[in-house]
Amino acid sequence: MKKNQVIKTMLNHKSIRRFKPKSPTMETIRTIVRAGQQAPFSSQVYSLLLSRNQKRNPFKAPLTFTICIDFHKLQLIMKKRKWDLVSNDLFCLLMGIQDASLMAENMVIAAESLGLGTCFLGNTPLRTTEIAKEYKLPKRVFPLTQIAMGYPAENPSTRPRYPLEFVLFENEYPKFNEKDIKKAMERMDQGYLAQDYYRKSSYRVPLEKGRKEKFTFDNYSWTEHISRKWGQWNPSPEKLLEQLSKCGFSIKKKM
Amino acid sequence: MKKNQVIKTMLNHKSIRRFKPKSPTMETIRTIVRAGQQAPFSSQVYSLLLSRNQKRNPFKAPLTFTICIDFHKLQLIMKKRKWDLVSNDLFCLLMGIQDASLMAENMVIAAESLGLGTCFLGNTPLRTTEIAKEYKLPKRVFPLTQIAMGYPAENPSTRPRYPLEFVLFENEYPKFNEKDIKKAMERMDQGYLAQDYYRKSSYRVPLEKGRKEKFTFDNYSWTEHISRKWGQWNPSPEKLLEQLSKCGFSIKKKM
Repeated sequence: MKKNQVIKTMLNHKSIRRFKPKSPTMETIRTIVRAGQQAPFSSQVYSLLLSRNQKRNPFKAPLTFTICIDFHKLQLIMKKRKWDLVSNDLFCLLMGIQDASLMAENMVIAAESLGLGTCFLGNTPLRTTEIAKEYKLPKRVFPLTQIAMGYPAENPSTRPRYPLEFVLFENEYPKFNEKDIKKAMERMDQGYLAQDYYRKSSYRVPLEKGRKEKFTFDNYSWTEHISRKWGQWNPSPEKLLEQLSKCGFSIKKKM
Repeated sequence: MKKNQVIKTMLNHKSIRRFKPKSPTMETIRTIVRAGQQAPFSSQVYSLLLSRNQKRNPFKAPLTFTICIDFHKLQLIMKKRKWDLVSNDLFCLLMGIQDASLMAENMVIAAESLGLGTCFLGNTPLRTTEIAKEYKLPKRVFPLTQIAMGYPAENPSTRPRYPLEFVLFENEYPKFNEKDIKKAMERMDQGYLAQDYYRKSSYRVPLEKGRKEKFTFDNYSWTEHISRKWGQWNPSPEKLLEQLSKCGFSIKKKM
């Protein structure tokens, strides 16, 4: 495999959940955001909210960035140009999630290149009401994800990923056989078990509906973990639709 | 601003639409994908389709990557774990678009660090039927975006971006005044005009509904360009919903 400083930085990525109290300088923050800004956006329909309130930030991180989908700014500009936005909100979200995610990933890599660590907070879209209130968000701004950031006070291993041949397909999507699936599962499960990841975090996704726990930290690993999430959580879109609606996005229209 | 090889690579990003015929080696391709794989995913719910059919690829690029949201693989794994996926499809998309976008952005940066150029093809979600057929995609795989990739045969300037203070907000989302909006618009419009970007591309978004063209390439720029897109295109979600539905995603459920 080819190596250079950029590739090395990416391959060395891992989430950091313990931070030193030292706050990055404003110069460092601006560098990270500026690097993020150059991502290949469709329409720059994102905004960043920054909190340096270390006491209140998740993981007591010196920085929390909230990455938002932002159509408020776009619509202000369109108004100056005498245009109204007519695109449907599902399409707005489809493009907005991409713009916000490109920004987020660039920021993660830029931050790590400067010696900082980061952690995504995946449950952001279900906490938008409180975030909107805290940051006084106007309508048409939707908090998509948050990134905790600061200098790492831990140095975990990089986490396993699927085998490359379970991810990259040339010309045709394959029909997976038992062996392919088993190999991908083993790579993930044995990789996380070798790091004792879930035991160290003391967390298993709780079982609902009277299902009995049959796993211990000796065999509970990644594929069981994500299966429990996708097999139990968020069966109805109602909560997400409500959060979207409160932020001024209606994807029910014409459906 | 702080500088290192990673930051420099990011700040130097621009889309490339003309490529040398030389195809990157499989080692280069694998390096780029492997670097992409280490992004901070929620559940690795993505797949990559690769075409090296230069003649048929957009911009005749040596490589086209189609980045898909992929719940097919996840559900195969869940089945082995005796779980059914219950999460609603809107939530699936919300997380899937993020995973696919993080992968895509890492690949762009990795590729550029190795001297390659890239261009996103934003209209992918409205062409999923043909893509699904071409690559024989199973249900629950949705082509989100495509990246053309190869060694650049052009060297354009980096494109302008909003002023940092129109993007990053500490503690509170601001109330923009006329000056803020004007400054952001001027940064974008004068930046693109200085590069003669739209004249060189010979393209203005056509006006619909009998609107009269009042712009020439002397004053047509970015804010007018995106206003026309968001002000005219995709008023109804029907087409996108249909594409999603054909790929096995139903976000109408319970709505």
